[in-house]
This record gives sequence, structure tokens and C-alpha cells, in this order.
Amino acid sequence: MRSGEPCESIPVDDRAVQYGDGLFETVAIRDGEPRLWNYHSERLLTGCARLGLPVPTEQQIQDELNSALEAAPIDTEHCVAKLLVSAGAGHRGYRRSDSPEGTLLVGLAESPRLSEVQYRDGVKVRVCDTRLAIQTQLAGIKSLNRLEQVMARNEWQDETVFEGLLLDTEDRLICGTMSNVFLIDSHSLVTPAITRCGISGVMRRHVLAVVEQAGIACDIRDVASSELNSCQGAILTNSQFGVLPVNRCTDRSWELSDLSRRILQLVTASGVTEYAA
Amino acid sequence: MRSGEPCESIPVDDRAVQYGDGLFETVAIRDGEPRLWNYHSERLLTGCARLGLPVPTEQQIQDELNSALEAAPIDTEHCVAKLLVSAGAGHRGYRRSDSPEGTLLVGLAESPRLSEVQYRDGVKVRVCDTRLAIQTQLAGIKSLNRLEQVMARNEWQDETVFEGLLLDTEDRLICGTMSNVFLIDSHSLVTPAITRCGISGVMRRHVLAVVEQAGIACDIRDVASSELNSCQGAILTNSQFGVLPVNRCTDRSWELSDLSRRILQLVTASGVTEYAA
Repeated sequence: MRSGEPCESIPVDDRAVQYGDGLFETVAIRDGEPRLWNYHSERLLTGCARLGLPVPTEQQIQDELNSALEAAPIDTEHCVAKLLVSAGAGHRGYRRSDSPEGTLLVGLAESPRLSEVQYRDGVKVRVCDTRLAIQTQLAGIKSLNRLEQVMARNEWQDETVFEGLLLDTEDRLICGTMSNVFLIDSHSLVTPAITRCGISGVMRRHVLAVVEQAGIACDIRDVASSELNSCQGAILTNSQFGVLPVNRCTDRSWELSDLSRRILQLVTASGVTEYAA
Repeated sequence: MRSGEPCESIPVDDRAVQYGDGLFETVAIRDGEPRLWNYHSERLLTGCARLGLPVPTEQQIQDELNSALEAAPIDTEHCVAKLLVSAGAGHRGYRRSDSPEGTLLVGLAESPRLSEVQYRDGVKVRVCDTRLAIQTQLAGIKSLNRLEQVMARNEWQDETVFEGLLLDTEDRLICGTMSNVFLIDSHSLVTPAITRCGISGVMRRHVLAVVEQAGIACDIRDVASSELNSCQGAILTNSQFGVLPVNRCTDRSWELSDLSRRILQLVTASGVTEYAA
């Protein structure tokens, strides 16, 4: 696995550049430590196995991350680490070399902080025109092929819209461009199954564990886009911002429900403290 | 548009690396000149418009290509030029900056030469298990999101299999991992419509023009995967190798038909001389 000094460039013939032949993780560093690391690590390993990519060892990732944290000119108590694993350099054409060496890169950046108002009152979302293609082989993992998200995110410039929700080509609600979504009724919770497309977010997984522990039922199933019109609210999850309520979706608006508030409090109590901050 | 000296690396924060947010072309350089340049240029511009990417000028591309040709340590009479256009560096997250500068890279490599036997007797293909997702927004263009092709090409190691054919998720035949495909009956020709997925190859376009000029009818339409069992032959097209007959697909074998031979000869007469060489 090619890695080493924190670097600012990557060989042009790396397969990440040529074909998006790799995966990434964006890990929240909080109090100097990677948050939900086990979930990130598991998704990365699952993805490497699924795509047949070289697998970095836990030690390699740890060493890279530590070097990056030591060298970074930013506040490393609160930042975001981006890990990138690719099939490595060389070998022209779609066929990989027989024993690819692989590339592991870690970069750090400042983690955007949202306002207290956004956590308290919620954010506005829209439904994107861009659809997610159904491709079970890539569903769930965080590959470097992200043009659908790029196209969706670039549909709007309106700064008051925080996120865009994505439907698949068969009209199911799947996720946001950079987040997962839960729909809320008075006493129940549902989140789309990530089996045909979309990314299985680590914060989605954390919220699922937290609500289960608290005895709140959450269905994981196919969600028709029309359920956005019948539900009583929604929350978004993301590794960096944690959990955010939605107060407006296109022409519908929602009050923050008791259940939404309870989930936000449970997530805060679990150590994801953005909401409380 | 960031470009300039022929370079061997690209900034890690370029959106080509991060999201595959870009396009590429692989242009055959023959007798020192880019072959089918108008088709490549048109596809690149169409792709830039579709994805909302910064558009390089013809002059920028020409300058980059000339610098690359001058600096290359290989035979620049017969080689392959890879052009890559991306949304450029910077701006974390899926949203592009409001006026992205863009990146244009040109690299040269040796162009593989196939054997006379492959052109004369044909090559063996298989049908891949990997399916192409239906995504009309990306169909036809040659984006940097190529994981489906990578997964498909890495399904087999058998060196006697030259290419893998790809079906979409709804069982239509679309193309090969690196080629387009035409199916042949005694007097007719059909090639899959590239409207839901797949890449519109420049050599496919050239062959379509050549056969039309010769008065040979070619349907462009949806092709069911079962038509692979009923047709009497197939040919593959690709910007580098030109046109190749298929002599075997999984458990079916085909003789080179008169129509296949005629198409190969017409393409040679049009100036794509790999077959004759």
C-alpha cells in the first residue's frame, strides 16, 4: 500500500484519478479522536472487499492519520479526516494489475460548524431532479464514483436550502446528497433501505443503534417518494454534523416533533454533541 | 483552465480524484495526428455541457497535446493520447465553486497493437455478470466514474478472452467494457442505442457513418440480450483497435461473415488501417 508523508498530489496514473477506482471515508475528529471509527473502518473494509481493492491494515491507517494530525496547520481537536483508498497507480485500462499495491491517502480539513439555530429549528431541504441509478453492486459503499451526488448538489444555488433529497430511478426516497434521512410520524420512525443505491452512513448506523437501545422502533424498508408528503417530519444524519431536524421540504413545513427532539437528545447523550453545542 | 507543463501528478483536492468529477477521451494518434478528432472533441464538449464542467478551448487542447507530443519519450507517430478534463481543484463537498477553473491534462502512452490473427480470425468475448445501471444523465458521455467497467473487466483473468460484453440491469445488451458492439445477420446490422447507459464510442460513430455511406442499413435500437444467441456474428469497435470481428461468445462460435468482412474493408478504406496492417 503506497502511503507515507502527507502529500498534496497524487500520480496522474493512479486509478482514483483515471476511473474513480477506490473508496473514501470522511471521519469526524472530535477532541482529537476519530468518532465512530469502528463504523468507518467496517464500511471501508466492506467496500474494499466488494470492489476487490487492496486492504490497508488498521496500523497503516492509524500511522497515516497520526502523521496527518501531527502535520496539520489546523485545529486537530475538531476537524475532518478524509481517508482515500484506491487500486493504486499504473496498469492502463480497466483491468487492474494482478497484485495492485493500492494507495492510501489521509487529508485533514476544517470541519464546518453549523449554527445553533439550525439544530434547534431545523433546516430546509429540496427534492433533487437527479435520480440515483439502481446498482446493487455499489449500493451502501462510499466509492469515488460520485457524479450523481455532484450533479444533484449543483442543481441549486439558493443558500437557504441546506440539503437535497434523492430519489432512485424508480421513485423511492433513498438519501440526501451528503446525508441519510429518517422520516418521522408521531410514534414511529422509518429510514430507506440502502440496498439498490445510496450510501450507508455511519451516523445513520449510530442513530439506528441509539434508537433501538431506547426502545424506539425504526423500520428499515423501501420508502416511496410520496411518503415525504404524508410523514410528520424528517431528520438528516451525517458523520460531521450529526443529526439535524428538517423544518421544510419544498412546499411542506414541519414543526419539530417530540419524537425528533427525543432522538436529538438521545444522540447527544450518546456522545455526538453537535446538537447540544 | 489549469494546464501547462506535462505533469505526472495532480493535486489531491482535484475533483477528478475526489469524486470522478470530470471526463476523458482516449485519442488514437496515427501518423502523428489525432484520429477522429472531431468526434472526440464533440463528445468532450457534449459531456462538459451535460455535467456543467468548465470547457477547454480547442486552442488549449491543441497546445497541451502538442507539448505532450514534443516531450514524450515514446513513438509519437503511433500512440494514444489521454485527455482528462475535471471540475478542478478545491471546494470541499459535492458543490462546485461558483466559477470552477477546471483542469485539463494530456498524457501519452504506447498504443497496444493487436495481432493480424485477431483481425483476421476474430476474438473471443464473454458476457459479464456486472450490469450497467440505468442513468440517462450519464449515458453516452465518457465520465471519470468508471467503476462498473472496472468491476466487469476484473471478472476474468483468462487471457484468451479479449473483451466482456455488458448488459444493463434490464437485460439489454449495451456495449463491451472498452468497446461498442454491432450484431450482424446475413444482410443487416444492429447496434445498441446508448440512451440509458454505456458510452457512445467515436469508432462506433465512424462505423455508422461508413456503413451508411456504403448503403448498408444499420438499426440503432434497444437490443435484448437474447439477440446474442440469434445473431450470426458480431464486431467490436474502439478508438484504438478500430474494428475487430468476434469469433466466439461464451459457448457460441461464429464464422467471419461476408458482411463482417465487407465492413472491415470499408473501415480500412476510410483510413482506419489497423485491420489491413
